[in-house]
Amino acid sequence: MAIEQKLSLMIPGPTPVPEKVLQALSKHPIGHRSKEFQDLVESTTKNLQWLHQTQNDVLTITGSGTAAMEAGIINTLSKGDKVICGENGKFGERWVKVAKEFGLEVIKIESEWGTALNPEEFKKVLEEDNQKEIKAVIVTHSETSTGVINDLETISSYIREHNIALSIVDCVTSLGACNVPVDEWQLDVVASGSQKGYMIPPGLSFISMSQKAWEATEKSNLPKFYLNLKSYRKSLLTNSNPYTPAVNLFFALDEALKMMREEGLDNIFLRHKKHKLAISNAVKTLNLKLFADEKYLSPSITAIETGEIDAEKFRKIIKNKFDILVAGGQDHLKGKIFRVGHLGYINDRDIITVISAISKTLLDLGEITAIRAGEALVEASKFLDKD
Amino acid sequence: MAIEQKLSLMIPGPTPVPEKVLQALSKHPIGHRSKEFQDLVESTTKNLQWLHQTQNDVLTITGSGTAAMEAGIINTLSKGDKVICGENGKFGERWVKVAKEFGLEVIKIESEWGTALNPEEFKKVLEEDNQKEIKAVIVTHSETSTGVINDLETISSYIREHNIALSIVDCVTSLGACNVPVDEWQLDVVASGSQKGYMIPPGLSFISMSQKAWEATEKSNLPKFYLNLKSYRKSLLTNSNPYTPAVNLFFALDEALKMMREEGLDNIFLRHKKHKLAISNAVKTLNLKLFADEKYLSPSITAIETGEIDAEKFRKIIKNKFDILVAGGQDHLKGKIFRVGHLGYINDRDIITVISAISKTLLDLGEITAIRAGEALVEASKFLDKD
Repeated sequence: MAIEQKLSLMIPGPTPVPEKVLQALSKHPIGHRSKEFQDLVESTTKNLQWLHQTQNDVLTITGSGTAAMEAGIINTLSKGDKVICGENGKFGERWVKVAKEFGLEVIKIESEWGTALNPEEFKKVLEEDNQKEIKAVIVTHSETSTGVINDLETISSYIREHNIALSIVDCVTSLGACNVPVDEWQLDVVASGSQKGYMIPPGLSFISMSQKAWEATEKSNLPKFYLNLKSYRKSLLTNSNPYTPAVNLFFALDEALKMMREEGLDNIFLRHKKHKLAISNAVKTLNLKLFADEKYLSPSITAIETGEIDAEKFRKIIKNKFDILVAGGQDHLKGKIFRVGHLGYINDRDIITVISAISKTLLDLGEITAIRAGEALVEASKFLDKD
Repeated sequence: MAIEQKLSLMIPGPTPVPEKVLQALSKHPIGHRSKEFQDLVESTTKNLQWLHQTQNDVLTITGSGTAAMEAGIINTLSKGDKVICGENGKFGERWVKVAKEFGLEVIKIESEWGTALNPEEFKKVLEEDNQKEIKAVIVTHSETSTGVINDLETISSYIREHNIALSIVDCVTSLGACNVPVDEWQLDVVASGSQKGYMIPPGLSFISMSQKAWEATEKSNLPKFYLNLKSYRKSLLTNSNPYTPAVNLFFALDEALKMMREEGLDNIFLRHKKHKLAISNAVKTLNLKLFADEKYLSPSITAIETGEIDAEKFRKIIKNKFDILVAGGQDHLKGKIFRVGHLGYINDRDIITVISAISKTLLDLGEITAIRAGEALVEASKFLDKD
C-alpha cells in the first residue's frame, strides 16, 4: 500500500508536512473550551494576521477552502445581488456555481484556461456600473487548475475605485507563496486553506474579513448557520470557536505558522519564486510546453503540456518509478497536461528531483537525449543557486 | 502549559484518543484523488455502515457535528416546510435555530432540561396531522447538555406510522455508545461527530441517509454548496470526496473503526452502560444529585448537581488537583452542574479515577467523610466487576 510508501507529494495540495508539524498533530487533544485552547487560538490568530499582512479579523473554519469561499459569499451578499465572477479555470467556475446556487446575478469575466484575466475588463464593467449595483467581485488569485496567477493587485485597485463592490478573493494557492498584502491592497474577503502554503494537512480554512465586509454582513439575507461568520467573530472575542473545531489541526497550525515566521515572508516568497523559475525554465529546456501564459505563472503550480504523450501515462510513470505524486489535468485538460505543485514545504532538492524524474521519463520515452536532461539540470540550477 | 500536561479528558468531546490512532493521524498526508485514498474511503465507509447497523449511505464531511445536522436539514427540506423539533437541552435548541434560520415552520415539543422528551406528545402531533404537512421530526438522541437520553426507538416508531415525515436525528453522543440500529428503527438522517464515540479528534462528521431521505433531496429547494449531500453521494460512488477532505483524520478514523470492530458493538455498548451505572450510583452514594431523570441517563455523559457548592469551583479543583477535565453546565446551568463524559476510549480505571477525584474534592470541602468515599468506591465497583 502506497500509504506506507515514501511518497513525495508535488500536487497543489495536500502539500508535504514538516515532521514537527506532524508531531504536533499527534498530541492528545485538549478541551476546545479550555484556557489552553484559547491560548492556542490567540497565538494562531496573531500569526494568521501576520501572514495575511492585515489588522483585519482572520477566522478559522473547520472545512475546506471551498467552505471558506462559500462563507465569504453567503455572509456578505443577498439574493439577487449582482456580482462579477472572474473565470479562467476550474476554481473560477466553482465560484460562479456557488454564486448562482445562492441566487446571485453573475456577470462573468472570462479568459481562456491558461491565460490570465484581463484587469481592464473588470475596470470597464465596474466603471459602467453607474447605479453601483455590483456588490462584489469574486476572483481567484492563483488558478490551481491551470497554473495561472491573476493580477489581483490591479483588479483590486479597480474594485476600490468602484467604492461599493467588495473584493472576495480565493487565495488558496497564493497565500503563503507570494505577496498578498491584504491591508495594502484593501482586500475585503480573503479565503485560504490549510493543506497549501500553510504546510499542514487539510481540514482547516481561513477567511480574512475587512471592516467593509463586516458591514456587508449586516445586510446579507442568505440563510446560513455553520458558516455564519458572525458566530465565528463573536467566538473570536474570547479566542474560541462557535462549534467544536479540529483541535489537533490547530496544534499543527500553530507550529507551522511559527516556522513560517522564522523563515520570514520575504524568504518564503523568494523560495517559491526561485522554484517556479527553476521548473518552468527546465521544462522549456526539455522541449515541453508550459500550459500557462509565461507572464502569469503561478508561484505554486506549474502546468505542463505533454503534446503527443498522454499526460496521465506520464504521471503514472513518475508515480511508479520515482514515488512522486504530481497532479493531472482537470476536465477537458485531463490527459493533456500534468501539474507540478511546488507549494509550502518544498526545498531546492525537491525541485531538482522532480525535474530529474521528468527528464528520465522523457529519456525512457525516447523524447530527449541525455544531453538535454543534463541541460535542464543546469538551467534549473541557475535559479536555485542564487542565494 | 497544560497542553504539555498529562491531562485526562472526561468531557463529552473531544474524548481521549488511543495511541495508535494518534500515530495514524501523524502519518504524512497522501493525495485525496489517489487510489490509496480511495482504498481508505472504501474501508471507512464499510465500517461506518457496520457501526450504524445500516445498508444506507454513510457520508463523511469535514466539519463538526453541527455541520452534519445542518446538512441533514437543508438537504431534505424546503422553505416553509413544517417540522417538529424536540427540545430538552442546548442541542435541541440549536436545531430549532437552524430550522428557523432556513425558513422552516417549527412545532416545538419541549421538556424541562434534565427530563426526557415524551414520545406520546410526538405521537399526538403526528396523528393530528391529517394533511400530512409535517415533513420531518428533528430530535436529539443523547442530549449532551443535560445527560438525558431520549427514547428514540419509540419516537421513531411514531414517525414511521405518520409515513411522510422523515426522522432527522442528532446521534452525536449516542452513536458508538449505545444501540442505534439505523435500519431496524428506520432512521432517515443520522448525524454524528468524530470526537465522540469514534475515539478520534474533532474535524469529521458523519451522516447516514436512507432511500427516503435521498428522495426528499430531490424536492429540497434550500440553497447549499459545501454541504450539498448529493455531491458527497456522487463522489462516494468512486470512494472519493467532493472537496479536499481532512485526509489525516481519515487515517485516524480507519484505525479507530478497526479497533471498534475488534471490540464488537455489544461489548462497546456494555462498557458504556457499566460506566454509566458505576458513576451514577457512586454519585448518589456521595450525596450528590444526578441532574438527569434516572430513567433516562445518557450512556455517555453524567450531569451532576453540586447544590450549595459552585460547580465551576468544583470543576477547577478536579482539574488542578487531578488533571481531569470535566465539563461545566451550559447557559442557566453554569455553576449548578458539572458533566462527566464517559464516552469513547474510556476504561474502568478512568471511571474509578474520576469517582475518586470527586470523592476527594467533597472530602476536602468537608461535605463527606472518608467512610462515604470508600462506600462510593465499593458501589461503583459493583458495576465494574460484572465481567
